Amino acid sequence: MTARRPSSGELARHRPPRCYAPDLPGSPASLELTSAEAHHLSAVLRLGVGDEVELFDGRGGSAWARIVLTGRGRVVVETGPVRLDPPPGWTAALLQGLPKNEARDLVVRIATELGAARMVFVHAQRTVGRPSPADVERLISRWHAVAVAAAKQCGRNRLPELGWAPSVEAAVEGGWTGLSLAGEAGGPPLRDRLAPAAAGGCRAIRVALGPEGGFDPAERAALERAGFVPFRLGPHILRTETAAVAVLAALAYELDRPAGSGSAVP
Amino acid sequence: MTARRPSSGELARHRPPRCYAPDLPGSPASLELTSAEAHHLSAVLRLGVGDEVELFDGRGGSAWARIVLTGRGRVVVETGPVRLDPPPGWTAALLQGLPKNEARDLVVRIATELGAARMVFVHAQRTVGRPSPADVERLISRWHAVAVAAAKQCGRNRLPELGWAPSVEAAVEGGWTGLSLAGEAGGPPLRDRLAPAAAGGCRAIRVALGPEGGFDPAERAALERAGFVPFRLGPHILRTETAAVAVLAALAYELDRPAGSGSAVP
Repeated sequence: MTARRPSSGELARHRPPRCYAPDLPGSPASLELTSAEAHHLSAVLRLGVGDEVELFDGRGGSAWARIVLTGRGRVVVETGPVRLDPPPGWTAALLQGLPKNEARDLVVRIATELGAARMVFVHAQRTVGRPSPADVERLISRWHAVAVAAAKQCGRNRLPELGWAPSVEAAVEGGWTGLSLAGEAGGPPLRDRLAPAAAGGCRAIRVALGPEGGFDPAERAALERAGFVPFRLGPHILRTETAAVAVLAALAYELDRPAGSGSAVP
Repeated sequence: MTARRPSSGELARHRPPRCYAPDLPGSPASLELTSAEAHHLSAVLRLGVGDEVELFDGRGGSAWARIVLTGRGRVVVETGPVRLDPPPGWTAALLQGLPKNEARDLVVRIATELGAARMVFVHAQRTVGRPSPADVERLISRWHAVAVAAAKQCGRNRLPELGWAPSVEAAVEGGWTGLSLAGEAGGPPLRDRLAPAAAGGCRAIRVALGPEGGFDPAERAALERAGFVPFRLGPHILRTETAAVAVLAALAYELDRPAGSGSAVP
Protein backbone atom coordinates (compact mmCIF):
# COMPACT_ATOMS: atom_id res chain seq x y z
CA MET A 1 0.00 0.00 0.00
CA THR A 2 1.37 3.37 -1.01
CA ALA A 3 1.51 6.01 1.73
CA ARG A 4 -1.03 8.74 1.25
CA ARG A 5 -0.51 12.37 2.21
CA PRO A 6 -3.20 13.13 4.80
CA SER A 7 -5.60 16.05 4.58
CA SER A 8 -4.74 19.20 6.52
CA GLY A 9 -7.32 18.25 9.14
CA GLU A 10 -5.60 14.91 9.63
CA LEU A 11 -2.22 16.66 9.69
CA ALA A 12 -3.24 18.86 12.59
CA ARG A 13 -4.20 15.80 14.63
CA HIS A 14 -1.35 13.55 13.64
CA ARG A 15 2.10 14.61 12.56
CA PRO A 16 4.43 11.67 12.01
CA PRO A 17 8.19 11.86 12.61
CA ARG A 18 10.15 13.61 9.87
CA CYS A 19 13.16 11.83 8.37
CA TYR A 20 15.90 13.22 6.18
CA ALA A 21 16.10 11.19 2.96
CA PRO A 22 18.50 12.87 0.56
CA ASP A 23 17.83 10.16 -2.06
CA LEU A 24 14.05 10.41 -1.92
CA PRO A 25 12.79 8.82 -5.18
CA GLY A 26 10.68 11.00 -7.44
CA SER A 27 7.84 8.48 -7.65
CA PRO A 28 6.53 5.90 -5.16
CA ALA A 29 9.18 3.21 -4.48
CA SER A 30 10.93 1.23 -1.77
CA LEU A 31 13.67 3.13 0.03
CA GLU A 32 16.13 2.08 2.68
CA LEU A 33 16.66 4.94 5.15
CA THR A 34 20.13 6.06 6.20
CA SER A 35 21.48 4.24 9.24
CA ALA A 36 21.18 7.34 11.45
CA GLU A 37 17.50 7.73 10.58
CA ALA A 38 16.90 3.99 10.89
CA HIS A 39 18.42 4.00 14.37
CA HIS A 40 16.36 7.01 15.44
CA LEU A 41 13.08 5.52 14.20
CA SER A 42 13.53 2.00 15.50
CA ALA A 43 15.66 2.36 18.64
CA VAL A 44 14.60 5.81 19.88
CA LEU A 45 11.02 6.27 18.65
CA ARG A 46 10.32 2.49 18.62
CA LEU A 47 8.39 2.62 15.36
CA GLY A 48 7.76 -0.56 13.42
CA VAL A 49 6.18 -1.99 10.28
CA GLY A 50 3.03 -0.10 9.31
CA ASP A 51 4.00 3.18 11.02
CA GLU A 52 4.11 6.35 8.96
CA VAL A 53 6.91 8.85 8.57
CA GLU A 54 7.39 12.02 6.55
CA LEU A 55 10.50 12.10 4.37
CA PHE A 56 12.18 15.27 3.11
CA ASP A 57 15.13 15.46 0.75
CA GLY A 58 16.61 18.79 1.82
CA ARG A 59 15.95 20.27 -1.64
CA GLY A 60 12.27 21.08 -1.15
CA GLY A 61 10.89 17.60 -1.83
CA SER A 62 8.83 15.68 0.71
CA ALA A 63 6.74 12.54 0.76
CA TRP A 64 4.81 10.45 3.21
CA ALA A 65 6.05 6.91 3.65
CA ARG A 66 5.14 3.75 5.51
CA ILE A 67 7.61 1.42 7.18
CA VAL A 68 7.56 -2.01 5.49
CA LEU A 69 10.65 -3.64 6.99
CA THR A 70 12.79 -3.17 10.10
CA GLY A 71 15.58 -5.16 11.68
CA ARG A 72 19.37 -5.24 12.20
CA GLY A 73 19.47 -1.44 12.30
CA ARG A 74 17.74 -1.19 8.93
CA VAL A 75 14.46 0.51 8.07
CA VAL A 76 12.85 0.20 4.64
CA VAL A 77 9.85 2.34 3.70
CA GLU A 78 7.41 2.53 0.79
CA THR A 79 7.31 6.16 -0.28
CA GLY A 80 4.29 8.06 -1.56
CA PRO A 81 4.24 10.72 -4.29
CA VAL A 82 6.76 13.50 -3.85
CA ARG A 83 5.53 17.02 -3.36
CA LEU A 84 7.97 19.79 -4.26
CA ASP A 85 7.70 23.01 -2.23
CA PRO A 86 7.48 26.14 -4.34
CA PRO A 87 10.82 27.97 -4.51
CA PRO A 88 11.21 30.43 -1.63
CA GLY A 89 10.22 33.99 -2.42
CA TRP A 90 13.47 35.40 -1.03
CA THR A 91 17.10 34.40 -0.62
CA ALA A 92 19.34 35.24 2.30
CA ALA A 93 23.01 34.30 2.40
CA LEU A 94 24.89 34.93 5.62
CA LEU A 95 28.69 35.24 5.62
CA GLN A 96 29.80 35.19 9.21
CA GLY A 97 33.18 35.40 10.86
CA LEU A 98 33.50 32.02 12.58
CA PRO A 99 32.20 32.57 16.12
CA LYS A 100 33.01 30.61 19.24
CA ASN A 101 32.09 26.96 19.34
CA GLU A 102 28.83 27.13 21.23
CA ALA A 103 27.50 29.99 19.08
CA ARG A 104 27.92 28.12 15.80
CA ASP A 105 25.27 25.48 16.34
CA LEU A 106 22.83 28.13 17.55
CA VAL A 107 23.36 30.19 14.40
CA VAL A 108 22.98 27.18 12.09
CA ARG A 109 19.86 26.02 13.89
CA ILE A 110 18.13 29.39 13.87
CA ALA A 111 19.27 30.14 10.29
CA THR A 112 17.55 26.91 9.25
CA GLU A 113 14.37 27.74 11.15
CA LEU A 114 14.23 31.30 9.76
CA GLY A 115 14.70 30.18 6.16
CA ALA A 116 18.26 31.23 5.29
CA ALA A 117 19.34 29.86 1.91
CA ARG A 118 23.06 29.87 2.61
CA MET A 119 25.27 30.08 5.67
CA VAL A 120 29.01 30.47 5.17
CA PHE A 121 31.38 30.71 8.09
CA VAL A 122 34.43 32.75 7.25
CA HIS A 123 37.91 32.64 8.66
CA ALA A 124 38.42 36.34 9.34
CA GLN A 125 41.68 37.90 10.50
CA ARG A 126 40.29 38.28 14.00
CA THR A 127 38.85 34.77 14.15
CA VAL A 128 40.43 32.98 17.08
CA GLY A 129 42.29 29.84 15.94
CA ARG A 130 42.52 28.44 12.42
CA PRO A 131 40.76 25.14 11.70
CA SER A 132 42.74 22.63 9.64
CA PRO A 133 41.16 21.19 6.46
CA ALA A 134 40.21 18.10 8.50
CA ASP A 135 38.61 20.34 11.15
CA VAL A 136 36.66 22.15 8.46
CA GLU A 137 35.32 18.88 7.07
CA ARG A 138 34.28 17.79 10.55
CA LEU A 139 32.70 21.18 11.30
CA ILE A 140 30.67 21.24 8.09
CA SER A 141 29.39 17.75 8.74
CA ARG A 142 28.42 18.79 12.27
CA TRP A 143 26.59 21.90 11.00
CA HIS A 144 24.83 19.74 8.44
CA ALA A 145 23.56 17.49 11.23
CA VAL A 146 22.37 20.55 13.19
CA ALA A 147 20.55 21.88 10.10
CA VAL A 148 18.93 18.49 9.45
CA ALA A 149 17.71 18.30 13.06
CA ALA A 150 16.32 21.85 12.86
CA ALA A 151 14.64 21.13 9.49
CA LYS A 152 12.99 18.03 10.95
CA GLN A 153 11.58 20.02 13.81
CA CYS A 154 10.47 23.16 12.00
CA GLY A 155 9.00 21.48 8.92
CA ARG A 156 11.35 23.07 6.41
CA ASN A 157 12.08 20.79 3.44
CA ARG A 158 15.02 22.76 2.04
CA LEU A 159 18.31 22.71 3.92
CA PRO A 160 20.48 25.81 3.88
CA GLU A 161 23.68 25.44 1.90
CA LEU A 162 26.48 25.33 4.48
CA GLY A 163 30.00 26.40 3.71
CA TRP A 164 33.35 27.58 4.87
CA ALA A 165 35.62 30.25 3.39
CA PRO A 166 39.28 30.64 4.34
CA SER A 167 39.09 34.44 4.05
CA VAL A 168 36.67 37.31 3.52
CA GLU A 169 38.11 37.76 0.01
CA ALA A 170 37.31 34.12 -0.83
CA ALA A 171 33.83 34.41 0.70
CA VAL A 172 32.78 37.29 -1.57
CA GLU A 173 34.19 35.87 -4.80
CA GLY A 174 31.73 35.19 -7.59
CA GLY A 175 29.47 38.20 -7.35
CA TRP A 176 25.88 38.66 -6.28
CA THR A 177 22.97 40.20 -8.11
CA GLY A 178 21.04 41.33 -5.03
CA LEU A 179 21.80 43.60 -2.11
CA SER A 180 25.06 43.09 -0.17
CA LEU A 181 25.13 44.33 3.43
CA ALA A 182 27.97 44.44 5.95
CA GLY A 183 27.32 44.88 9.66
CA GLU A 184 29.19 47.89 11.01
CA ALA A 185 28.58 49.86 14.23
CA GLY A 186 28.68 53.19 12.39
CA GLY A 187 26.35 52.26 9.53
CA PRO A 188 22.76 53.39 8.97
CA PRO A 189 19.95 51.28 10.48
CA LEU A 190 19.26 48.03 8.61
CA ARG A 191 15.76 49.24 7.81
CA ASP A 192 17.10 52.23 5.87
CA ARG A 193 19.02 49.80 3.62
CA LEU A 194 16.58 46.96 3.38
CA ALA A 195 13.12 48.53 3.21
CA PRO A 196 13.76 50.58 0.03
CA ALA A 197 15.46 47.60 -1.67
CA ALA A 198 12.57 45.32 -0.74
CA ALA A 199 10.03 47.90 -1.88
CA GLY A 200 11.91 47.99 -5.21
CA GLY A 201 11.48 44.22 -5.57
CA CYS A 202 14.86 43.01 -4.32
CA ARG A 203 14.52 39.55 -2.78
CA ALA A 204 18.15 38.39 -2.65
CA ILE A 205 20.31 39.67 0.18
CA ARG A 206 23.71 38.63 1.40
CA VAL A 207 24.94 39.82 4.74
CA ALA A 208 28.49 39.84 6.10
CA LEU A 209 28.97 39.85 9.87
CA GLY A 210 32.36 40.07 11.52
CA PRO A 211 33.72 37.70 14.14
CA GLU A 212 34.09 38.80 17.76
CA GLY A 213 36.26 41.89 17.36
CA GLY A 214 34.87 42.71 13.91
CA PHE A 215 36.41 42.71 10.43
CA ASP A 216 39.81 44.35 10.10
CA PRO A 217 40.36 47.34 7.78
CA ALA A 218 41.63 45.21 4.85
CA GLU A 219 38.56 42.98 5.13
CA ARG A 220 36.25 45.97 5.27
CA ALA A 221 37.93 47.30 2.12
CA ALA A 222 37.46 43.92 0.39
CA LEU A 223 33.76 43.96 1.32
CA GLU A 224 33.39 47.49 -0.02
CA ARG A 225 35.06 46.50 -3.31
CA ALA A 226 32.60 43.61 -3.57
CA GLY A 227 29.69 46.04 -3.27
CA PHE A 228 28.81 45.58 0.39
CA VAL A 229 27.25 48.62 2.07
CA PRO A 230 27.35 49.07 5.85
CA PHE A 231 24.36 48.81 8.18
CA ARG A 232 23.84 48.56 11.89
CA LEU A 233 21.37 46.68 14.07
CA GLY A 234 20.14 48.96 16.85
CA PRO A 235 22.16 50.99 19.31
CA HIS A 236 23.81 48.16 21.27
CA ILE A 237 26.83 45.97 20.72
CA LEU A 238 25.35 42.62 19.74
CA ARG A 239 27.20 39.37 20.16
CA THR A 240 28.02 37.93 16.79
CA GLU A 241 25.43 35.16 17.16
CA THR A 242 22.75 37.63 18.27
CA ALA A 243 23.57 39.77 15.24
CA ALA A 244 23.21 36.74 12.95
CA VAL A 245 19.87 35.75 14.40
CA ALA A 246 18.56 39.32 14.49
CA VAL A 247 19.50 40.11 10.90
CA LEU A 248 17.96 36.87 9.60
CA ALA A 249 14.77 37.56 11.56
CA ALA A 250 14.65 41.08 10.11
CA LEU A 251 15.18 39.74 6.57
CA ALA A 252 12.42 37.16 7.06
CA TYR A 253 10.14 39.87 8.46
CA GLU A 254 10.76 42.24 5.56
CA LEU A 255 11.02 39.81 2.65
CA ASP A 256 8.72 36.90 3.43
CA ARG A 257 5.65 38.27 1.70
CA PRO A 258 3.70 37.42 -1.44
CA ALA A 259 5.40 38.39 -4.70
CA GLY A 260 4.17 41.70 -6.05
CA SER A 261 3.02 43.04 -2.68
CA GLY A 262 5.86 45.57 -3.00
CA SER A 263 5.80 48.23 -0.34
CA ALA A 264 2.04 48.16 0.05
CA VAL A 265 0.70 47.30 3.45
CA PRO A 266 -3.04 46.70 3.75
CA MET B 1 40.16 63.21 41.36
CA THR B 2 36.72 62.84 39.85
CA ALA B 3 36.44 60.40 36.94
CA ARG B 4 35.89 62.13 33.64
CA ARG B 5 33.87 60.68 30.79
CA PRO B 6 36.33 60.27 27.90
CA SER B 7 35.79 61.69 24.43
CA SER B 8 34.39 59.37 21.79
CA GLY B 9 37.87 59.03 20.29
CA GLU B 10 39.21 57.87 23.63
CA LEU B 11 36.22 55.59 24.02
CA ALA B 12 36.98 53.79 20.79
CA ARG B 13 40.52 53.06 21.97
CA HIS B 14 39.74 52.21 25.56
CA ARG B 15 36.54 50.80 26.92
CA PRO B 16 36.75 50.05 30.63
CA PRO B 17 34.84 47.21 32.28
CA ARG B 18 31.17 47.92 32.91
CA CYS B 19 29.75 47.38 36.39
CA TYR B 20 26.16 47.24 37.51
CA ALA B 21 25.59 49.80 40.28
CA PRO B 22 21.87 49.98 41.09
CA ASP B 23 22.55 52.70 43.70
CA LEU B 24 24.60 54.95 41.44
CA PRO B 25 24.58 58.40 43.08
CA GLY B 26 23.20 61.27 41.02
CA SER B 27 26.28 63.45 41.51
CA PRO B 28 29.97 62.58 42.00
CA ALA B 29 30.52 60.66 45.25
CA SER B 30 32.20 57.65 46.81
CA LEU B 31 30.42 54.36 46.21
CA GLU B 32 31.10 50.87 47.44
CA LEU B 33 30.35 48.37 44.70
CA THR B 34 28.24 45.27 45.33
CA SER B 35 30.23 42.26 46.44
CA ALA B 36 29.65 40.43 43.14
CA GLU B 37 31.04 43.37 41.17
CA ALA B 38 33.89 43.87 43.65
CA HIS B 39 34.88 40.23 43.28
CA HIS B 40 34.74 40.40 39.49
CA LEU B 41 36.86 43.56 39.30
CA SER B 42 39.51 42.62 41.84
CA ALA B 43 39.77 38.83 41.66
CA VAL B 44 38.88 38.18 38.00
CA LEU B 45 39.96 41.32 36.14
CA ARG B 46 42.71 42.15 38.70
CA LEU B 47 41.95 45.86 38.65
CA GLY B 48 43.25 48.08 41.43
CA VAL B 49 43.36 51.62 42.72
CA GLY B 50 43.45 54.15 39.89
CA ASP B 51 41.78 51.90 37.31
CA GLU B 52 38.64 53.11 35.59
CA VAL B 53 35.27 51.44 35.29
CA GLU B 54 31.94 52.39 33.77
CA LEU B 55 28.94 52.12 36.09
CA PHE B 56 25.33 51.74 34.98
CA ASP B 57 22.26 51.69 37.20
CA GLY B 58 19.93 49.61 35.04
CA ARG B 59 17.50 52.55 34.71
CA GLY B 60 19.35 54.40 31.95
CA GLY B 61 21.96 56.13 34.13
CA SER B 62 25.68 55.64 33.65
CA ALA B 63 28.87 57.23 34.96
CA TRP B 64 32.59 56.77 34.72
CA ALA B 65 34.33 55.98 37.97
CA ARG B 66 37.82 55.42 39.33
CA ILE B 67 38.76 52.79 41.89
CA VAL B 68 40.03 54.46 45.09
CA LEU B 69 40.10 51.54 47.51
CA THR B 70 40.27 47.76 47.26
CA GLY B 71 40.77 44.97 49.78
CA ARG B 72 38.97 42.21 51.68
CA GLY B 73 36.58 41.69 48.77
CA ARG B 74 35.59 45.37 48.77
CA VAL B 75 35.92 47.90 45.96
CA VAL B 76 35.19 51.61 46.49
CA VAL B 77 35.05 54.01 43.55
CA GLU B 78 34.76 57.75 43.06
CA THR B 79 31.98 58.29 40.56
CA GLY B 80 31.81 60.99 37.90
CA PRO B 81 28.72 62.86 36.73
CA VAL B 82 25.77 60.68 35.78
CA ARG B 83 24.53 60.71 32.22
CA LEU B 84 20.93 59.63 31.69
CA ASP B 85 20.16 57.91 28.37
CA PRO B 86 17.17 59.36 26.54
CA PRO B 87 14.06 57.23 26.96
CA PRO B 88 13.87 54.53 24.30
CA GLY B 89 11.75 55.39 21.28
CA TRP B 90 9.79 52.16 21.46
CA THR B 91 8.58 49.66 24.05
CA ALA B 92 8.35 45.93 23.62
CA ALA B 93 6.91 43.63 26.28
CA LEU B 94 7.19 39.91 25.73
CA LEU B 95 4.84 37.51 27.54
CA GLN B 96 6.17 34.04 26.95
CA GLY B 97 5.00 30.63 28.07
CA LEU B 98 7.87 29.42 30.27
CA PRO B 99 10.14 27.45 27.95
CA LYS B 100 12.59 24.71 28.83
CA ASN B 101 15.44 25.55 31.14
CA GLU B 102 18.20 26.12 28.62
CA ALA B 103 16.02 28.33 26.43
CA ARG B 104 15.19 30.80 29.21
CA ASP B 105 18.64 32.31 29.63
CA LEU B 106 19.00 32.63 25.87
CA VAL B 107 15.73 34.53 25.61
CA VAL B 108 16.58 36.86 28.52
CA ARG B 109 20.04 37.53 27.13
CA ILE B 110 18.90 38.30 23.61
CA ALA B 111 15.87 40.28 24.84
CA THR B 112 18.30 42.48 26.77
CA GLU B 113 20.60 42.93 23.78
CA LEU B 114 17.71 43.73 21.42
CA GLY B 115 16.23 46.34 23.75
CA ALA B 116 13.08 44.67 25.13
CA ALA B 117 11.51 46.75 27.91
CA ARG B 118 9.77 43.88 29.67
CA MET B 119 10.01 40.11 29.66
CA VAL B 120 7.40 38.12 31.54
CA PHE B 121 7.48 34.35 31.65
CA VAL B 122 4.02 32.90 32.00
CA HIS B 123 2.88 29.63 33.48
CA ALA B 124 0.64 28.43 30.67
CA GLN B 125 -1.57 25.35 30.81
CA ARG B 126 0.86 23.45 28.59
CA THR B 127 3.96 24.58 30.48
CA VAL B 128 5.74 21.49 31.74
CA GLY B 129 6.03 21.52 35.56
CA ARG B 130 4.93 24.26 37.93
CA PRO B 131 7.61 26.23 39.81
CA SER B 132 6.95 26.84 43.51
CA PRO B 133 7.04 30.44 44.83
CA ALA B 134 10.62 29.77 46.01
CA ASP B 135 11.54 28.48 42.54
CA VAL B 136 10.05 31.62 40.99
CA GLU B 137 12.11 33.85 43.26
CA ARG B 138 15.25 31.91 42.36
CA LEU B 139 14.42 31.98 38.65
CA ILE B 140 13.81 35.74 38.61
CA SER B 141 17.07 36.36 40.38
CA ARG B 142 18.87 34.15 37.87
CA TRP B 143 17.27 35.96 34.90
CA HIS B 144 18.23 39.27 36.51
CA ALA B 145 21.87 38.12 36.61
CA VAL B 146 21.68 37.05 32.95
CA ALA B 147 20.21 40.44 31.99
CA VAL B 148 22.91 42.29 33.96
CA ALA B 149 25.65 40.28 32.23
CA ALA B 150 24.12 40.96 28.80
CA ALA B 151 23.71 44.68 29.59
CA LYS B 152 27.37 44.89 30.60
CA GLN B 153 28.46 43.37 27.35
CA CYS B 154 26.13 45.16 24.94
CA GLY B 155 26.37 48.61 26.49
CA ARG B 156 22.69 48.93 27.37
CA ASN B 157 22.11 51.00 30.52
CA ARG B 158 18.46 50.04 31.04
CA LEU B 159 17.64 46.53 32.23
CA PRO B 160 14.46 44.91 31.01
CA GLU B 161 11.82 44.47 33.68
CA LEU B 162 11.67 40.73 34.40
CA GLY B 163 8.60 39.03 35.71
CA TRP B 164 6.58 35.94 36.19
CA ALA B 165 2.85 35.38 35.87
CA PRO B 166 1.04 32.33 37.22
CA SER B 167 -1.40 32.30 34.28
CA VAL B 168 -2.11 33.95 30.93
CA GLU B 169 -5.09 35.71 32.53
CA ALA B 170 -2.80 37.23 35.19
CA ALA B 171 -0.19 38.19 32.59
CA VAL B 172 -2.61 40.31 30.56
CA GLU B 173 -4.26 42.09 33.49
CA GLY B 174 -3.95 45.84 33.64
CA GLY B 175 -4.42 46.78 30.01
CA TRP B 176 -2.11 48.15 27.37
CA THR B 177 -2.39 51.23 25.24
CA GLY B 178 -0.36 49.93 22.29
CA LEU B 179 -0.64 46.97 19.95
CA SER B 180 -1.14 43.48 21.45
CA LEU B 181 -0.02 40.52 19.33
CA ALA B 182 -0.34 36.79 19.92
CA GLY B 183 1.76 34.28 18.00
CA GLU B 184 -0.47 31.76 16.21
CA ALA B 185 0.35 29.47 13.29
CA GLY B 186 -2.78 30.48 11.38
CA GLY B 187 -2.40 34.26 11.80
CA PRO B 188 -1.37 36.82 9.19
CA PRO B 189 2.36 37.62 8.80
CA LEU B 190 3.78 39.82 11.58
CA ARG B 191 4.56 42.51 9.04
CA ASP B 192 0.88 42.87 8.09
CA ARG B 193 0.11 43.66 11.74
CA LEU B 194 3.15 45.66 12.71
CA ALA B 195 4.04 47.81 9.70
CA PRO B 196 0.69 49.66 9.51
CA ALA B 197 0.68 50.22 13.29
CA ALA B 198 4.26 51.53 13.19
CA ALA B 199 3.46 53.75 10.22
CA GLY B 200 0.56 55.13 12.27
CA GLY B 201 2.97 56.04 15.08
CA CYS B 202 2.47 53.08 17.42
CA ARG B 203 5.65 52.43 19.39
CA ALA B 204 4.38 50.17 22.21
CA ILE B 205 3.88 46.53 21.43
CA ARG B 206 3.26 43.55 23.66
CA VAL B 207 3.61 40.07 22.27
CA ALA B 208 2.33 36.79 23.71
CA LEU B 209 4.07 33.58 22.68
CA GLY B 210 2.90 30.17 23.78
CA PRO B 211 5.02 27.51 25.48
CA GLU B 212 6.07 24.38 23.61
CA GLY B 213 2.69 23.02 22.50
CA GLY B 214 1.10 26.48 22.30
CA PHE B 215 -1.64 28.20 24.29
CA ASP B 216 -4.76 26.17 24.97
CA PRO B 217 -8.19 27.33 23.72
CA ALA B 218 -9.15 29.03 27.04
CA GLU B 219 -5.85 30.96 27.02
CA ARG B 220 -6.37 31.99 23.42
CA ALA B 221 -9.82 33.24 24.35
CA ALA B 222 -8.37 35.22 27.29
CA LEU B 223 -5.80 36.80 24.96
CA GLU B 224 -8.52 37.71 22.49
CA ARG B 225 -10.62 39.32 25.25
CA ALA B 226 -7.54 41.34 26.25
CA GLY B 227 -7.25 42.69 22.70
CA PHE B 228 -4.50 40.45 21.35
CA VAL B 229 -4.63 39.84 17.60
CA PRO B 230 -2.94 36.79 16.05
CA PHE B 231 0.15 36.89 13.85
CA ARG B 232 2.60 34.37 12.50
CA LEU B 233 6.34 34.41 11.91
CA GLY B 234 7.13 32.80 8.57
CA PRO B 235 6.04 29.43 7.24
CA HIS B 236 7.92 27.16 9.65
CA ILE B 237 7.27 25.91 13.15
CA LEU B 238 9.68 27.92 15.27
CA ARG B 239 10.90 26.76 18.64
CA THR B 240 9.52 29.00 21.34
CA GLU B 241 12.93 30.61 21.96
CA THR B 242 13.49 31.19 18.25
CA ALA B 243 10.05 32.81 18.04
CA ALA B 244 10.93 35.11 20.97
CA VAL B 245 14.22 36.17 19.44
CA ALA B 246 12.76 36.57 15.95
CA VAL B 247 9.82 38.69 17.05
CA LEU B 248 12.02 40.97 19.17
CA ALA B 249 14.44 41.38 16.26
CA ALA B 250 11.54 42.24 13.96
CA LEU B 251 10.18 44.78 16.47
CA ALA B 252 13.62 46.37 16.83
CA TYR B 253 13.96 46.45 13.04
CA GLU B 254 10.56 48.09 12.50
CA LEU B 255 10.39 50.41 15.51
CA ASP B 256 13.92 51.53 16.25
CA ARG B 257 13.91 54.65 14.12
CA PRO B 258 13.89 58.36 14.78
CA ALA B 259 10.59 59.76 16.03
CA GLY B 260 8.49 61.27 13.25
CA SER B 261 10.14 59.25 10.50
CA GLY B 262 6.79 57.46 10.13
CA SER B 263 6.71 55.12 7.20
CA ALA B 264 9.09 57.23 5.11
CA VAL B 265 12.34 55.64 4.06
CA PRO B 266 15.00 57.88 2.54
